[in-house]
Amino acid sequence: MFKVPDHQVAGHRAQDGKLGPVIDDAGRFYKPLQNDERGSKEVAFYESFSSNTRVPDHIRRFFPVFHGTQLVEASDGSGSHPHLVMQDLTLNRLNPSVMDIKMGSRTWYPQASMKYIEKCLKKDRDSTSVHLGFRISGLQTYESKKSGFWKPAKKTVQSFTVNDVKSSLRKYVSSNPSSKTEPDCLFASIVYGGSDGILAQLLELKAWFENQTIYQFSSCSVLMIYGKEGSEAGSSHPEVKLVDFAHVVEDEGIIDHNLLGGLCSLIKLVSDIVNSPGECVKRRFAGIREE
Amino acid sequence: MFKVPDHQVAGHRAQDGKLGPVIDDAGRFYKPLQNDERGSKEVAFYESFSSNTRVPDHIRRFFPVFHGTQLVEASDGSGSHPHLVMQDLTLNRLNPSVMDIKMGSRTWYPQASMKYIEKCLKKDRDSTSVHLGFRISGLQTYESKKSGFWKPAKKTVQSFTVNDVKSSLRKYVSSNPSSKTEPDCLFASIVYGGSDGILAQLLELKAWFENQTIYQFSSCSVLMIYGKEGSEAGSSHPEVKLVDFAHVVEDEGIIDHNLLGGLCSLIKLVSDIVNSPGECVKRRFAGIREE
Repeated sequence: MFKVPDHQVAGHRAQDGKLGPVIDDAGRFYKPLQNDERGSKEVAFYESFSSNTRVPDHIRRFFPVFHGTQLVEASDGSGSHPHLVMQDLTLNRLNPSVMDIKMGSRTWYPQASMKYIEKCLKKDRDSTSVHLGFRISGLQTYESKKSGFWKPAKKTVQSFTVNDVKSSLRKYVSSNPSSKTEPDCLFASIVYGGSDGILAQLLELKAWFENQTIYQFSSCSVLMIYGKEGSEAGSSHPEVKLVDFAHVVEDEGIIDHNLLGGLCSLIKLVSDIVNSPGECVKRRFAGIREE
Repeated sequence: MFKVPDHQVAGHRAQDGKLGPVIDDAGRFYKPLQNDERGSKEVAFYESFSSNTRVPDHIRRFFPVFHGTQLVEASDGSGSHPHLVMQDLTLNRLNPSVMDIKMGSRTWYPQASMKYIEKCLKKDRDSTSVHLGFRISGLQTYESKKSGFWKPAKKTVQSFTVNDVKSSLRKYVSSNPSSKTEPDCLFASIVYGGSDGILAQLLELKAWFENQTIYQFSSCSVLMIYGKEGSEAGSSHPEVKLVDFAHVVEDEGIIDHNLLGGLCSLIKLVSDIVNSPGECVKRRFAGIREE
């Protein structure tokens, strides 16, 4: 009945007897609760968010639907284990292209211990988080029946520089992501652009984050999802979702400037691609190396 | 010819034989160059900024006019010393109300040494920087001929909590800042509001920061200045200025999400005051304590 999700690009994976999320065939995603306080904090967030009338309806679409918690056989064979149950975000998607972006130049929450802060600060400095206000945690983008997905290895993604991130945002919407030539950004306008493309959705989230003072989302992720097959029929259906809420702090009465700053930085890079759709192709023909 | 500025609310002060900025009676402000690389970095920024054609004209009004460097008798009596020469921002202001706000949840620059980062991180965590995305470095606001300025002591300002910052932003535009009753926010609409009030200016800066990828302004300050006397005649003339550029890094090709996040946070607090002009007074009459 349960199986390991095919399209997970970041986080713990349920393989080789390890604990990780599973999905069922009814469209639900089961995430094992972490034993420390992170598990209970994430459940507390979903419960608060589900019932909070101050969250506008149009913002709810950016969050996975929450179905409570459930005891489920753990993927590591250790018996039944409490799981968070939510919507499977890639349900009914054939070969979805997915990018997981950990938001914020700071991934530690202010109340954390010095030891935890130092651990996060090192990762933030070693990755693009401090420079860019976010880092890519994982990605896959479908290339073709023959070559399948372009999915850089975890270690490769972890060592991404600012220019690698810029380049990956172009490859993510290209028909030739694995090629050594310049990415063609063939799907940029259909995926990033448009009235309900990724950019429009990010801007809608930004407007909310400029005002909402309910939640501080330390170290959550923005997921971008779209389908390449059938995109000509307009079915690429790009979606932005927020996930990973183990460190949310509530009701501080201030905006989440840490997430918002990273969101503005991501918006700038995505809008540069949308506003210069020919840039990738021009570079390719001119033989100019990407910065 | 030179004298110690009357309305400096933060930074080193030229008193008791210490090195600090001085002004002349021609409207110039002389800031001693720090001996380490900070001095030369700040000069380099002003030189770059003055000549950079990518900076839109309407943005230049938010920066002090730069008049080069000059050898001037140091205020600590140590002989002539190189000074940055710029516009005296409080020239011709009678009893100006001034607030100096150090921007960013992070005041260290990514290239800094671990020792420097740790020093800044401690200050950022101990102040409101991490929580709010900025901290108040100093302020004064004119109350009356009789009581003069309300100007909390440096130590008091350094220990401001988030609620102290919220309260100070109200007191800054009140006729009764030193009173123990609630601040009346009498000048909120004339200073923060209006088509060229502080809020409108902050929003104009924000629009630039969402796009500019030329400069990263680590640990610079937003100065807010206005005049209370004569405000009925419309001469309160609120101004926003950016100052302190010893740690600017150039041409990273990414937005300054650290400053932008703090700017959005400040904008939210200021707009809350503008949008609820009666809030302060209501609280006062209801006898409700500020949060």
